[in-house]
Amino acid sequence: MTRIAFLGPRGTFAEAALRRLDAADDAELVPAASVHAALDLARTGEVDMALVPMENSVEGSVPLTLDELSSSGTGLVIIDEVVLPVTMTLVAPAGVAMADVSRIATHPHAHAQVRGWLDANLPGVVVLPALSTAGAAAGLHDLPRMYDAAIAPAITAEIYGLTILAENIGDTEDAHTRFVLVRGPGFVPERTGADKTTLALYIHQDQPGALLAILNEFAVRGVNMTRIESRPTRKVLGDYYFSVDIEGHVSDARVAEALMGLHRVCLDVRYLGSYPRHDGREPVLRAGVTDADFAEAQDWLKNLKGN
Amino acid sequence: MTRIAFLGPRGTFAEAALRRLDAADDAELVPAASVHAALDLARTGEVDMALVPMENSVEGSVPLTLDELSSSGTGLVIIDEVVLPVTMTLVAPAGVAMADVSRIATHPHAHAQVRGWLDANLPGVVVLPALSTAGAAAGLHDLPRMYDAAIAPAITAEIYGLTILAENIGDTEDAHTRFVLVRGPGFVPERTGADKTTLALYIHQDQPGALLAILNEFAVRGVNMTRIESRPTRKVLGDYYFSVDIEGHVSDARVAEALMGLHRVCLDVRYLGSYPRHDGREPVLRAGVTDADFAEAQDWLKNLKGN
Amino acid sequence: MTRIAFLGPRGTFAEAALRRLDAADDAELVPAASVHAALDLARTGEVDMALVPMENSVEGSVPLTLDELSSSGTGLVIIDEVVLPVTMTLVAPAGVAMADVSRIATHPHAHAQVRGWLDANLPGVVVLPALSTAGAAAGLHDLPRMYDAAIAPAITAEIYGLTILAENIGDTEDAHTRFVLVRGPGFVPERTGADKTTLALYIHQDQPGALLAILNEFAVRGVNMTRIESRPTRKVLGDYYFSVDIEGHVSDARVAEALMGLHRVCLDVRYLGSYPRHDGREPVLRAGVTDADFAEAQDWLKNLKGN
Amino acid sequence: MTRIAFLGPRGTFAEAALRRLDAADDAELVPAASVHAALDLARTGEVDMALVPMENSVEGSVPLTLDELSSSGTGLVIIDEVVLPVTMTLVAPAGVAMADVSRIATHPHAHAQVRGWLDANLPGVVVLPALSTAGAAAGLHDLPRMYDAAIAPAITAEIYGLTILAENIGDTEDAHTRFVLVRGPGFVPERTGADKTTLALYIHQDQPGALLAILNEFAVRGVNMTRIESRPTRKVLGDYYFSVDIEGHVSDARVAEALMGLHRVCLDVRYLGSYPRHDGREPVLRAGVTDADFAEAQDWLKNLKGN
Repeated sequence: MTRIAFLGPRGTFAEAALRRLDAADDAELVPAASVHAALDLARTGEVDMALVPMENSVEGSVPLTLDELSSSGTGLVIIDEVVLPVTMTLVAPAGVAMADVSRIATHPHAHAQVRGWLDANLPGVVVLPALSTAGAAAGLHDLPRMYDAAIAPAITAEIYGLTILAENIGDTEDAHTRFVLVRGPGFVPERTGADKTTLALYIHQDQPGALLAILNEFAVRGVNMTRIESRPTRKVLGDYYFSVDIEGHVSDARVAEALMGLHRVCLDVRYLGSYPRHDGREPVLRAGVTDADFAEAQDWLKNLKGN
Repeated sequence: MTRIAFLGPRGTFAEAALRRLDAADDAELVPAASVHAALDLARTGEVDMALVPMENSVEGSVPLTLDELSSSGTGLVIIDEVVLPVTMTLVAPAGVAMADVSRIATHPHAHAQVRGWLDANLPGVVVLPALSTAGAAAGLHDLPRMYDAAIAPAITAEIYGLTILAENIGDTEDAHTRFVLVRGPGFVPERTGADKTTLALYIHQDQPGALLAILNEFAVRGVNMTRIESRPTRKVLGDYYFSVDIEGHVSDARVAEALMGLHRVCLDVRYLGSYPRHDGREPVLRAGVTDADFAEAQDWLKNLKGN
Repeated sequence: MTRIAFLGPRGTFAEAALRRLDAADDAELVPAASVHAALDLARTGEVDMALVPMENSVEGSVPLTLDELSSSGTGLVIIDEVVLPVTMTLVAPAGVAMADVSRIATHPHAHAQVRGWLDANLPGVVVLPALSTAGAAAGLHDLPRMYDAAIAPAITAEIYGLTILAENIGDTEDAHTRFVLVRGPGFVPERTGADKTTLALYIHQDQPGALLAILNEFAVRGVNMTRIESRPTRKVLGDYYFSVDIEGHVSDARVAEALMGLHRVCLDVRYLGSYPRHDGREPVLRAGVTDADFAEAQDWLKNLKGN
Repeated sequence: MTRIAFLGPRGTFAEAALRRLDAADDAELVPAASVHAALDLARTGEVDMALVPMENSVEGSVPLTLDELSSSGTGLVIIDEVVLPVTMTLVAPAGVAMADVSRIATHPHAHAQVRGWLDANLPGVVVLPALSTAGAAAGLHDLPRMYDAAIAPAITAEIYGLTILAENIGDTEDAHTRFVLVRGPGFVPERTGADKTTLALYIHQDQPGALLAILNEFAVRGVNMTRIESRPTRKVLGDYYFSVDIEGHVSDARVAEALMGLHRVCLDVRYLGSYPRHDGREPVLRAGVTDADFAEAQDWLKNLKGN
């Protein structure tokens, strides 16, 4: 049976995201204590895959995920992504009403997202930090009870037998978290035509214009970028790598040529996986960069060389 | 008397960073409960300035700082920066020895940085999350005591009357946090020759090549970039802004021309301040981009137009 | 009275071009023996202006014009241009019919343009080279007559009292020649909104990517280029300068900033004049590069610097 | 026996250039009346190859050569080049001394190069135009003699039995002409490591930035350009193609990839041949663009795709 680790405990947004994937249907879902722990389980082979937050998370550190994947020697690669709307819910044990709530617990990032609602609806409430929103919900059963309610995903009400006091209490209507499913190397998902590829690009230090050169490698082959971040390498202050997402699959001719170009100009290129886009949106390509265009150009060249 | 808010409570790395600044010498230092709160105090004028973490923090959310500064309507600007080595210390009340420690508290990010040391030296210890490392230290005086020790800056031992059980327990030798000092608009620090400028660049949606165009505006004027991040705008998923740091001061001719160029091609350019670099390192400029070069070119043009 | 030199003798395409200009209306038109001679007359002040061929000429060497203007120490500048359709005519003295023509004279470049017509209509005819097409027509009055007819502009029939044997005999329907009107430095024609500027750009030797850098200076300011040629500098084999035409006037903000940028990165920038386009076509500008956009950006910058 | 056409008549600089090539050693050399005629002989197969001037010629029209090669449907390709120093000589029949010279003949371009010497040494001399410098020399044997001397290559003295009156009379010390050897398609000379490739690049009309895109295709693959000219296409005024020379051979991986890239973005790419550089100078390549680098990148990509 397939085993998939996720950022636990049970009831996290990560679990909700995982349940959206076909891969999870007949799999054993294994909660892990941290992003680090989830990735370690996949690295060592104790699980087949792991689902961790990548962008905009309310559950944990995204930079942590980026850095773990980018610098890992064992080469975990991303094979799928899920983007989940994040809706905050105030949950409490049976018998606790809004008027009874004077202390609540939640993850600090979730706290940041409901500050406006709390000021308006529970002024003066004490907020205790928890390691995860689901953990805050689970802790409502600890005795003696340290707090009266938790801010957590709605699903925790069902999992932990809690009551929902208020729904959709986030200050931003449409908060989202992006999760990625990773596994060991050597497996590349089929190209779907609406794919994304994630890379970590290490540049030669002290090269002004290095980023421009990198973007040029993409631009010349008509490859669009959807995310970029300079991240410190942890070795030397001021030494950076670039974490980027691009549109397309390593099997697309334009992506393949761009990757080889980057491999030639960068100190190191780490391929972190090609996978289907969560939204199935196909890229808008400029003229001349489809696979057919690349093949036709190759035929033309062969012909003019007379062979 | 000048009042400066910082990410509290007393004893945080933010306070340690603030004390390094001349501005703090005769000022009243005001601890704030969060990055948001610290910035709000500066926005409303209750304090003159605020010191908040910007990059790589162990105390709080850096993306939060970026987003608050970038989207703020009131226009706080950065006027100085401090980079502080982050050394983790295990502190406990008098009478508590290593052998007595079964529960500790700290901020989750600090926890991530000492995981290796804990596995080796305190296997099985329970780690409780706290809103800040300093808060964890301060909480050791709460009764009943919920935990035996805290992972926090060394200075908290002195502030809160605690004992240091272990020093330099971080897994990475040279962790650093970068803090920025912000204040209301209309004040630009003197150019020192070794300055940095922070910007938030909003692009027209769905423009492939927009980032390349932005980098070109810098490259053509010989302006080096030291940090870049694409950040979601919170309005529409897939809508980004770029948070960047560049070398140079808004009063440098090359920076001024680049800013005006960006203002013409971007949907919006938010100037978040020019300030002295923490390390005093002057930029290595390519030929033709000093203020003297710009002035000479202007004279040349005037002359050929015959006026 | 204004005196204007042109590439003579009387009856050349250059004269026809000159007569199209308002400047020629009340001026004395002075035929010169060569491009060099015409420019020298303007340089020394013996004439006020000179009209010489620049592009695609059938009368003389365009590279010669480019090089003379680009390397001249005295700084002649272009103040106007004329583009003239080039229609070839076979002219002969009275009494000579097509059947009588066994030898004709013309300029070698004109010969190249009527080769097809000659093969079809005068197979086996002997073609003698002349210094100019008009000179070939004028020579028909020399005694003894060395040739029976000349290929020349139609106007030579009137000027020299000749008969037209065949009209529009050029192999290409729409041959054109571009002429430029030059004068001494210190005069810049008014901006019309549909202008062109000509430059000679000298680069630092052995700099791969130098041309890319030059084009970038234009591209970043939204300046379109309409002509480019690498030309040897005559000093060292393999040492080049670039002769370029751009859309816009030195008084346009985008052109002015681009020129100053080029002045900073090039070994030398020679401004050869801003002048109205012959076709009155206004440039299609991308967003953000009008004078209003530049002025607005300058105001924005002033404002954020608080002065 | 191999037959090679050249721009005649006998004694031209083109013949002198041709004799420098090994290919000419056992070949029959066929003088042609014009660049057009020489190329036609090669196109129709009447000769195996043709040598014509390409750059900086004193013998004929270089643009003519560019345009003929670029727009030819039959696809002649360049397989070699020769660069010849151009030294001008004053030749005359036996018995004619300097003091006897009142009329001379030469090609107009050669005339342009000796103007200074003539002003100083033969003031007032009448200069008659000839179709080629060698033709001017040959014509000295015509009776009645139309002129007293000719400006021509020194070799014409030997060929036509003339006396040398003055040597090295060019105003520029180091004038050079570049000739190219062309033949029918389907033959690509061996790569030598010091090669050049000539291209004609047709762009989609009205695309500002098209040239920048073209140069980028070269720059991204580390291909240096040694010559560029925008040339009108003869069809529509304002419609251009670019004639360029680049360093490298179509068999070099970096050149091959750049050519395919251009083929995808241009309206049309005409490959005009890869051939050894006349000076044997190998290109200075930036890191990452050797054939070994391309091969290594390809292996890397194969490996990460797991096949």
